[in-house]
Formats: sequence, C-alpha cells, structure tokens
Amino acid sequence: MFAPTVYVERRKALVTNLASRGLNDGLVIFLGNRESPINFAENPYRFRQDSSFLYFVGLSDPDMAAAIDLQTGQTTLFCDEMTEDTLVWTGPKPGVSALAESSGIESVATREGLSAFCRGKRLAYLPAYRAETAVELSELTGVSLQSINPGASGPLIQAVIALREIKENREIERIEHAVDISIDMHLAVIAAARPGASEAALMAIATHVALDGGGMPSFPPIATTHGAVLHNHGYDGVLQSGGTFLLDAGAETADGYAGDLTSTFPIGRGFDERQRAIYKIVLDASTAASSTIRPGVPYRNAHLAASRTIASGLAALGIMKGSIDEAVAAGAHALFFPHGVGHQMGLDVHDMESLGEHNVGYDNEPKSQQFGLKSLRMAKAVRPGMVLTVEPGVYFIPELIRRWKSERRHEQFIHYPALEAWMDVGGYRNEEDWLVTESGARVLGKEYVKSIDAMESRVISAPV
Amino acid sequence: MFAPTVYVERRKALVTNLASRGLNDGLVIFLGNRESPINFAENPYRFRQDSSFLYFVGLSDPDMAAAIDLQTGQTTLFCDEMTEDTLVWTGPKPGVSALAESSGIESVATREGLSAFCRGKRLAYLPAYRAETAVELSELTGVSLQSINPGASGPLIQAVIALREIKENREIERIEHAVDISIDMHLAVIAAARPGASEAALMAIATHVALDGGGMPSFPPIATTHGAVLHNHGYDGVLQSGGTFLLDAGAETADGYAGDLTSTFPIGRGFDERQRAIYKIVLDASTAASSTIRPGVPYRNAHLAASRTIASGLAALGIMKGSIDEAVAAGAHALFFPHGVGHQMGLDVHDMESLGEHNVGYDNEPKSQQFGLKSLRMAKAVRPGMVLTVEPGVYFIPELIRRWKSERRHEQFIHYPALEAWMDVGGYRNEEDWLVTESGARVLGKEYVKSIDAMESRVISAPV
Repeated sequence: MFAPTVYVERRKALVTNLASRGLNDGLVIFLGNRESPINFAENPYRFRQDSSFLYFVGLSDPDMAAAIDLQTGQTTLFCDEMTEDTLVWTGPKPGVSALAESSGIESVATREGLSAFCRGKRLAYLPAYRAETAVELSELTGVSLQSINPGASGPLIQAVIALREIKENREIERIEHAVDISIDMHLAVIAAARPGASEAALMAIATHVALDGGGMPSFPPIATTHGAVLHNHGYDGVLQSGGTFLLDAGAETADGYAGDLTSTFPIGRGFDERQRAIYKIVLDASTAASSTIRPGVPYRNAHLAASRTIASGLAALGIMKGSIDEAVAAGAHALFFPHGVGHQMGLDVHDMESLGEHNVGYDNEPKSQQFGLKSLRMAKAVRPGMVLTVEPGVYFIPELIRRWKSERRHEQFIHYPALEAWMDVGGYRNEEDWLVTESGARVLGKEYVKSIDAMESRVISAPV
Repeated sequence: MFAPTVYVERRKALVTNLASRGLNDGLVIFLGNRESPINFAENPYRFRQDSSFLYFVGLSDPDMAAAIDLQTGQTTLFCDEMTEDTLVWTGPKPGVSALAESSGIESVATREGLSAFCRGKRLAYLPAYRAETAVELSELTGVSLQSINPGASGPLIQAVIALREIKENREIERIEHAVDISIDMHLAVIAAARPGASEAALMAIATHVALDGGGMPSFPPIATTHGAVLHNHGYDGVLQSGGTFLLDAGAETADGYAGDLTSTFPIGRGFDERQRAIYKIVLDASTAASSTIRPGVPYRNAHLAASRTIASGLAALGIMKGSIDEAVAAGAHALFFPHGVGHQMGLDVHDMESLGEHNVGYDNEPKSQQFGLKSLRMAKAVRPGMVLTVEPGVYFIPELIRRWKSERRHEQFIHYPALEAWMDVGGYRNEEDWLVTESGARVLGKEYVKSIDAMESRVISAPV
C-alpha cells in the first residue's frame, strides 16, 4: 500500500474528473471483493481485491466498500470490526479506524450500513464481473440483476480509465518489479525444461517463483507443448525432444501490479529449420510492433505492423502469397495470428478489462468484427505513462486450417497446398511489456534476451 | 474420471435413495460450476468443478448442468458444442455426445435448454455456495435469491450425503494418493525450512509439490511462524531460529480428491523445553482421538478424548487445574483448543460442507453453542468407509487469553498467573487423515513419522 495521501489525491482527481463530465452529485460506490469460494463457502481461492478498489482505496481485505460523496468530496469506508472468532481464526487485525486512516479516509461505518447510506441517493458504480457484486448492486439500486451492468455509470467508467491508464512513477516501479519476477519465472522454467518433464511440473515451477515473490501469478500460467492452442490451461503433456514449449506467465506483486510475458523455446535440442524460421518471424513481428509505439500513434498500428511482418515472413516461406497489404486488410494472415498484438497492463493483467474493452482500448470507435482484429483489445492512440504488452504470435492450428481450407477462405492469399508441410510446427508467441515514454517507449524489466541463439544456448538435452 | 458405469450406478443409487425418502417425481438438478473471475471475467481462477457434479457426472469442464428425471431415471447433460473461438483459444475438445458417453448419459441438450427443460417440473437441488449458481437456481425455480438455499431439497441433501460419505474403494485409493502427495508437500517444506526463509517461500514449495502432482492444493496452505492464528493466510513472516513453524496443507488429485495434513516443527534447533511439552500433548491428543474411531462410535468422542488429553497435559504443566472432566464439560480447555478435532474428507477437503455442517456431521442432533465445541464439524457416529481428519491442537493466543483473563472466565480451571510464562509459546497442531474400517480405523498415506525425535532430526540450523 502507498501513503494515505496517494489515495486521497486519486479520489480528489476522480471527483474533479467526474465534475468535468457533469457528474457532481450523488455517491460513487466502490464495492471491494468478497471471498470467492472454490467448493464450499469456507474454502475460498486466494483473495484478490478489486483493482479499482485497490487504486482508489488501497485496502486489500475482503468485504469492504467505499462511497465518495460527490458534493462534499468525503469518502466513507464500510467495514466491520474484528469479532472474537476473527481473532481466533484469522488473527488480530488493525481496527477499522486505523484501516481508514491508512487510506486517508475520514469517515467509517459498518459494512451493513452501506445500504442505508445509499438510500435515496443517486449512485454511480462500475460494472460487476463477479455475481455477488452484481447481486449487491442490484439490492442497493433496486435495479434488476440483468440491468446492473448496462446501468453502470458511463462517466465513472471513463474517469476511472482516464486516471488508471496513465501510470504514476510509483506504479511503474511496481510493474517493473512484477516484470522482473515474471522474467525469473521464465528463466526458472527454461532451466528445468527438458525431455520427459511434464507441463504440470513446469507450471508448478512458474507458480512457485510467483508465490515466492510475495504475490501470485497474475493469471493461470499457460505452460504447454501445444502452443497452437492459445489459452491452453490443461497441463497433461510431457516434453519431447525436438518439440517446442510455450510459456505465457507473469507475476503480480503483493500489492497487485502485473507482469505478463511469453517465451517460446525448443526442447532438448536447437530449433529445426522450420521452427527457426517461424520463431524468427515472431521476433521480427515484435520488433515491428514495438517500434511503432510513441505518443499519439494508435496501437492498432502496432497490430498491423506485426501482421504485415508475419504475412511477409510467411510469404517468403511460400505459405502466403499475393499483396501483403491486401492480405492483411482482408484478414487472411489471421489464420496464423488470430489474436491481438497486446493490451494495457497495470493492476489487472488486461488492465481495466472489466470496464469494457471498447472503453479501455477504443476511443468511441467501433471494434472490427474481422476474425483476428476482433480480438485486438487495444487500438486507440497511446499516451505517455501507458503500459502495454507486445505479443505477436504465429500458430499452425490444424483444425482451423482444415476448416478454412474446406471453405476456401482467403485462398488468393493463402497457399493451402504448401501448408501441408507445416501443420505440425505448432505455435510461437513472444511477449514483452512496454512503457510509453514522452518520446517513444521502453521495454520493462531486467535484461532477458530471446534471440534464437540465446534460446538455443539455454537448451538442456539430457532427459529427466 | 472413472468408467461410465460408475456414474450410472451412482445416479441409480441416488434415484433409489430418493424414492425411499418419498421423492419420486420431478427433476434433480446438478449445476456444474462456472469459471470464477479473479479481477475480470476472462481471468478466472483455476477451474474447480462442483464436487457433487463430479461425483454423479464426473465431467470437469465449466458451464455444464445435468438433470435426472426421477420418474424415468433418465439423465440429460446440458452442454454446448465447441465454437470456432473455443477451437482457437482452448483447443479441440471432445464433442458433447462423447462427453455424455464418458459419463454413461443417454441424452444431451444445449446449456441454454436447461431452462425450458425445467419449466413446470418439480425441481430438487442442492444449496448454492457460489452467487452465480444461486442466481441461476433462482431463475430456474422462480424462487427469490434469498429463498434459494432455504429451498434446497432436504431429501436430496440427505441422499447425497448418504452416498458420498461412504467412500468406494476406488475413491479411497484416490484419497490415499492425495495424502501421499500431501506428505511430499510437508517433507519438502520441512527440508527447506531454516532460519531466514520466508513463509511465502515455504508456501510456494508446498504449492509447487501439489501442482506437480497434477492437481492443486486442496485449500490455500497455512504456512506460518504464528501457529496460534488458526487460519493464517498471510505469508509475510520470516523464520527465526528457536521458533516453531506450522504447516496445514494438502493436495487434491487431478480428479478432485483431497488430502489434509498439519505438521508443527521447530526452526533452526530442537524444541525447547516448553515447546516440547506442548508438542507432546498434541501428539498424545492425536493418539487419544484416533484410538476412539470405530464403527458406531460418535466422532464427538474423538473430540472429547483429545480435549481431555489436552486438559490433563496442561494441568500437569500447572496451566489448568481442578477436575479434568468438569473442565472439559465446561469448555475451559477450549481456550487452548478452540476448534474441532476433525471433519470428513473426500472430494471436498471438508467433505460436503456446502450441504450444511449440521447435515453432514450431526444426526438431527443440535450443535453445541459452547466456544470450541461449536466449531466441531463432525459429531455423529462414524461408519466403515468414512474418511476423517484427526487434528487436535494447542494454542496460546495472547489476545484471547487476555480477554478471558479480564473476564475471569473459567478461572476455577485455568491458572491464569501460571499462563504468563507461556504466552509466547505459539500454536501447535497435528493432523492426520483416517479411514474407518469394519473393525476400527487406519491412517491413510505412506509413512510419515512425526515424533519429537523425528521432527528434531529434520531440523536444519544453517540459515538461508
């Protein structure tokens, strides 16, 4: 947690920002998260506070809420004192007023008191991503459950994004620390990867390093010998010499800031010729994308730069054909690069995604419905202080290729006969975390070289 | 997953059991779990299927439901086919009919179809522990959210408990495997524990071993230098030579069966005299409790046997006084042993706790309101095939002792002046997992000796 003044200033900035959008009476409500049960109420997953609550209040215990009165600017914390049972089961905790003080909050009330406090007032709230939050918002507002998210406050969403997306220096330090731990996760996995190791064992190592860092993984790691499955969360595979491994994993710090990196590397021996060719295209696409980043440039440009590099690289291998620009405009390359080039990152690994991708990544601009581009989370112009992932990839997804081929989709740009020789090459992604500076951008975290030579030099050939 | 016939037979047994309770028309609805978001919808915690769904259906993907028609005995699986997006993002999956077949289910429908399927029928369902489940049950039944859990079917709860609480041999094998992995978690933590290590590092090691085993921790590990806080889920402490460490952690297998063990051990050197005395009382209490376990004997007896051993051990140290039986009857010993001696264990680490502790652990018998005894989750007579934890502990909780002392609570049994010398001795717990057999009970898992000598022989004195 930062100093109390940090939260006081953020809340002040929020009130000012909302006033500029015409919202200057009623209450802003931030509901902190509750415990999230695994298989019964008393067995919850590791607690994660809501990120906007963390940003404006900073307290990371479950069952809290805060309300900001937009006329007076006063914040009230709703939180219960410890009972004898809490004392025995979860240990002594600071009293409610000490908690409030650590966030610079003047006024406290019981958690149950929120309901009476809200009665008759105009309430502005953010969309809910957990069902219990939606249920409580429905009770507080009298609005039906189905109408809760459509009824979230547009000005509040915009104001929160405006503040959270420009990272303070103290936040950049925390994010860079998260990226450093994330790099350690990757280096530890690479050091243990060898023929015969299991995906589960490598995922366990990545998780170990994140937990050791005092926080937890910023999302469930993808640790797979089948990199062509984009979000593979099974860990049943075993590493085979001659294959490749894809690790998409990051840490979040104890105070909630995320890192998010992807590495792809060969197992048991160097890349073979086909693997090396694809890996090189992915590295080139990363460079092409990250070199577009500077204030004022739409992040869609980074996506398109990566797309063109991928299409022309695949054309050089005889897999694609025709005009690169036309192929990319038509979305033909998305057969091999079906996702977006990146997203904002901060207190959420996809920062503020719960506030709506179209709000966070698009400036009143409609999102493309084209396969591939529709998965681009961030398209708008970037600004200094934004943190972004750059994560192009090239995948050979046999089921998808067969489906497109049977539909003869984009056959003027895709050389389907040549593709037969590439069906088992798998999936490759390279992901880095970048900060937009005044003049351009810089990559975050300590040095982590991912050249072909560097990846091959780390290979261990002896099996488990 | 077991063979399809296993699930067919369990569902048949359920229908028969319900008929014997007078429930023989309408539908039994099992809602599988949904993904559980961490900080936005697309960032869920590791998926965990609902345990009753696992038991009767066996499928462990999110967003499924099943309905059993009590008149025809026919089961319908509600589950959606893969889309192009699923294919790209989460990989090819077996089709719905293949999934149904693996569970011996005859009939399939879309997930959305559940609502129409239920219309106009009498629905029996289990209580919900996740908000999104309660919301869907409310939509299906037309009953208000607040009335969903009170409206859960009593006969269904009783029938599910009757089946799930008697473990099949195939389940005992899985549980024993979970206990073996859990023992490995404990041995790995003890082998890394030394002065200067952090609680987070040791929790990371425990988690690593559980994940490496193919499943995950059966609950967030308690890994603490402050064992006197019963459910300490912070990991901020650092190990100091001369202190003790308490690890309460277990694994669940990939198919969902839990282990649950607690070890307490000295850090950096052997136990000192006071620590050794308390640890010995805890070991003796474990033996006293587990030796009561045989068919027909109420598990409350195990709790009371442990309580008496603790009270008499503390009396020998001058901490308690007066009649042991009277002290235990009055609940005076609960100052040092404020929780229950154990619970059932199976697909849930506290097995079936979501069905209500009074249903699972009490046979229509009121639960005691006495401090300590009110936390006993299991009091009823045990039967062959039940799996139970035995986990007595002794804790010196300074805040609680001061509160009781100021209220002069039970001062005829507690020698408060003598306690001053023990305030910083901390907390000790020993937990084992036991199977009730035809003639008595046996401890589950491979050998793990926890005698004073064994614990001291594992100590590493060199700091990190």
